[in-house]
Amino acid sequence: MEKMSATAGKPAGNENEAALATPFVKCLTRLIRAHDAYGWQDGASDAELLANFIITEEQRREIPIIGDPDPDVMLRLNIFYTAVGLTIEARTGLVASPTIMISHEGFGRVLLTTGRLVVFSKTVRDVHRFGFAKLRKLAEAGSKLVDDAIAAIEAYPEVARA
Amino acid sequence: MEKMSATAGKPAGNENEAALATPFVKCLTRLIRAHDAYGWQDGASDAELLANFIITEEQRREIPIIGDPDPDVMLRLNIFYTAVGLTIEARTGLVASPTIMISHEGFGRVLLTTGRLVVFSKTVRDVHRFGFAKLRKLAEAGSKLVDDAIAAIEAYPEVARA
Repeated sequence: MEKMSATAGKPAGNENEAALATPFVKCLTRLIRAHDAYGWQDGASDAELLANFIITEEQRREIPIIGDPDPDVMLRLNIFYTAVGLTIEARTGLVASPTIMISHEGFGRVLLTTGRLVVFSKTVRDVHRFGFAKLRKLAEAGSKLVDDAIAAIEAYPEVARA
Repeated sequence: MEKMSATAGKPAGNENEAALATPFVKCLTRLIRAHDAYGWQDGASDAELLANFIITEEQRREIPIIGDPDPDVMLRLNIFYTAVGLTIEARTGLVASPTIMISHEGFGRVLLTTGRLVVFSKTVRDVHRFGFAKLRKLAEAGSKLVDDAIAAIEAYPEVARA
């Protein structure tokens, strides 16, 4: 059994390392540390800082979607899209700012804009359950948003600078 | 005295009539009636429906800007920008949807987007005091937003349809 879990754990470990090395996740962890004004998590590793972003399918089902979304989950949603914006800025030099409108029922809209260009727009629901099944999924989701946004900026460069 | 107030009232009356006849204000009053689900204001004139949008300079100063903005004022802010969006849609055939993000302190951002184009973007503050000194000012502000948005759509037609 021990041997089995050791070999099973290896690819996951490499996978997590690769995820933590992406520019998006690096930016996200920097942002989480910046929000940690009292230094409560100074000793935490990057993976530990991101632990709250990881929600397994089982955990997800257990989170009720009635009532207001938890303020902590709203903060995570905010930090996630701010990290997307900052990574876009690092790569293009253009400020991409998130505008997030979430109703009391956890339903709403997320927009990322650069100049007059909407680089990302999404209707979100069940915000209560915001999270990713794995660190790799988190890295992929954020990196894909960054890539799509940069493709939009390249398609409409003058609007992004208007 | 009677005669004086009669002559003084005349231009204001004409001014209000002109304001009420603008496409933007017509759309706004239609929207307010649509929100009046219980028909409480069925007998109200258009000017009466808009009364809460009119705040004199003196009234404005009396409204405290601490604590959460009143839910009624948030609804008015929402209806105002939705009416701007609907008037744009009536004139261009393109859906312009507002995204409003206001913090607990009454500070935030209003975006109106059409396709991938940001047709309007504004940082708002002191939302507690949202209102206009006169009906004419309300009509002018809304109509200007509509005109500016349409100018932006005409400048970037393919982005507005992306």
